[in-house]
Amino acid sequence: MHAIIMAGGSGTRFWPASRKSRPKQFLPLDNGRPLIQSTVDRVMALAGKDQTWIVTNPDQADGMLEILDGFPPDQIIVEPEARDTAPCVALAAAVIEARDPGATMAVMPADHLIEPVEAFHALLKQGEELAQDNETLVTFGIPPTYAATGFGYIELGNQHDTLGSTFQVLRFREKPDQATAQRFASSNQFLWNSGIFVWNFASLTRAMGGANPKLLAATHAMLDAKQSGNQAALDQAFRACPKTSVDYAVMEKADRVMVIRANFNWNDLGSFAALGVIAEADSHGNIVLNQTDHEALVHQSERCTVYSEGPQTVALFGVQDLIVVNTGDALLVVPRARCEDIKEMIEHLKRSNRQDLL
Amino acid sequence: MHAIIMAGGSGTRFWPASRKSRPKQFLPLDNGRPLIQSTVDRVMALAGKDQTWIVTNPDQADGMLEILDGFPPDQIIVEPEARDTAPCVALAAAVIEARDPGATMAVMPADHLIEPVEAFHALLKQGEELAQDNETLVTFGIPPTYAATGFGYIELGNQHDTLGSTFQVLRFREKPDQATAQRFASSNQFLWNSGIFVWNFASLTRAMGGANPKLLAATHAMLDAKQSGNQAALDQAFRACPKTSVDYAVMEKADRVMVIRANFNWNDLGSFAALGVIAEADSHGNIVLNQTDHEALVHQSERCTVYSEGPQTVALFGVQDLIVVNTGDALLVVPRARCEDIKEMIEHLKRSNRQDLL
Repeated sequence: MHAIIMAGGSGTRFWPASRKSRPKQFLPLDNGRPLIQSTVDRVMALAGKDQTWIVTNPDQADGMLEILDGFPPDQIIVEPEARDTAPCVALAAAVIEARDPGATMAVMPADHLIEPVEAFHALLKQGEELAQDNETLVTFGIPPTYAATGFGYIELGNQHDTLGSTFQVLRFREKPDQATAQRFASSNQFLWNSGIFVWNFASLTRAMGGANPKLLAATHAMLDAKQSGNQAALDQAFRACPKTSVDYAVMEKADRVMVIRANFNWNDLGSFAALGVIAEADSHGNIVLNQTDHEALVHQSERCTVYSEGPQTVALFGVQDLIVVNTGDALLVVPRARCEDIKEMIEHLKRSNRQDLL
Repeated sequence: MHAIIMAGGSGTRFWPASRKSRPKQFLPLDNGRPLIQSTVDRVMALAGKDQTWIVTNPDQADGMLEILDGFPPDQIIVEPEARDTAPCVALAAAVIEARDPGATMAVMPADHLIEPVEAFHALLKQGEELAQDNETLVTFGIPPTYAATGFGYIELGNQHDTLGSTFQVLRFREKPDQATAQRFASSNQFLWNSGIFVWNFASLTRAMGGANPKLLAATHAMLDAKQSGNQAALDQAFRACPKTSVDYAVMEKADRVMVIRANFNWNDLGSFAALGVIAEADSHGNIVLNQTDHEALVHQSERCTVYSEGPQTVALFGVQDLIVVNTGDALLVVPRARCEDIKEMIEHLKRSNRQDLL
């Protein structure tokens, strides 16, 4: 089985620590290690060094090679441009199918925390077996621990195996409103969509055929271009892919999707508010992630998160429920309750012509 | 008349922009100019270059000469140590009496905003006349504009002149509680104590005699030491002064004090919350004081104050009523309502062995 790590994040969720050229997966959020490094290690141990791939975009390719010392450069697939997950998945599938026809492929995001690694490996192997069937797309679902509105959900259909961990997918449900999320999370018929998939080229393109013929055509064109070594044609076919997500373009419309209920710990680290899972809070609920020698000073303050890699000591006095991010060139103060909305700040940066900070 | 500028602030109120070695009067808070420079200019135009003095402490003397390019070095009186205002006033009085016996002296803080300068000069001249009487200490009172609890008050006695601007002082009132402040501010019998005084050596020492014989003895010893050029004796006498304020040691107990009601605009810039008087707020009440080229970005935020001289762009998103101070080595976030309490943060720094930040 080949493993494909989708590493093309836009760098907005952890702004200003994350940037276009330094997305979340570059941040040292896994015990001081970059998330991409942890993901590569976790995956390579299963798929092997020669069969581990990274898909990224031109803004991040250089940084990727720098961080991943020793990673095979020709297994870093650089998209001609950042273009959402459907083109990303199609490009990787074409490249791997050209190299190793008929291979099974596991696809996953670069910036999630997953442990223990053994459970992850076992489930992916289970997915590999299911994906041998040329008609089946396999996905992995996370049992909800709260009524999240920031994730898509997978509605379970019939149970497939006797162990109770594999189901037919009845349908994909987009990010729900709060009331719907409550209903989903309290039912045992829904799982969070982890964004991890297993399939082979045949089953993926079969599903594309029914769901998105334009994507299918571009995928076949990329395979042809790769097989004939025509980089210009590959780039052209990539740019012909619809700019959309693989969930929307393929998964939601596919007729043969199976979901495996994950039994590993999973966190997508969606915002600074999630950093509580990787660092211990003090007795007042404050979390300090110092990437410098300057120890932050948090005094008479509650439920604040400091992420500091700038040149200064961060001092909080008498504040509550704030996120403070200190980097070399920008410093953000945002309430914990608003940190999911940081994209609005990014839009403000664009309007203010502050490309230097994107 | 000689002018004495008391410039020995402890640098705590505007921390982290202010420090022990860089107190408030060094900050560029008067249209980008250091307050001490504005004070010197304002005073020198009245007293003349040869009769303008600065009293400061060893931590700040070097910085003072650096900022005040061209100020006569021998008119900077360096206290052997920081020791509150009574020793400061006594030392300056001794030095000036030794140089120019019988001279009148105006004493004032270095870090207040006062304008227009003409009104200030006119009132000081009025004070000079009153202070010709060897028994009279002259002080200046500010008509309260709100029920301040952070200032001492002066209770007015009988009117002295026919213009209605000069009164006998009935008594000094220490910083009141809120209810008392309300009563003081709504009565026309109280003025804020500006900390500006005019007297001569004879009237000052006469008042010391009745109020604080220890201070009187030290003052005479300093005069003798100065007259005989004995620096060691001068230092010793200074250290023998009670470590207390001139208000407490002398003014509150003096029997012949006159107050002149000020008709100039006065602001002591007591904390970051006061910066609204020197910079215009945007339509959401945000005030940005950038001492760098990096324009702060304040988005979806209200009533915040940013003081930035650090290397980064400060970005506020979705916050209210915060003060954010960004310097080269420290970064403070504090609610507007707590910025008068920054001394508690200073204490925390001391307990945390962060002398580097004091």
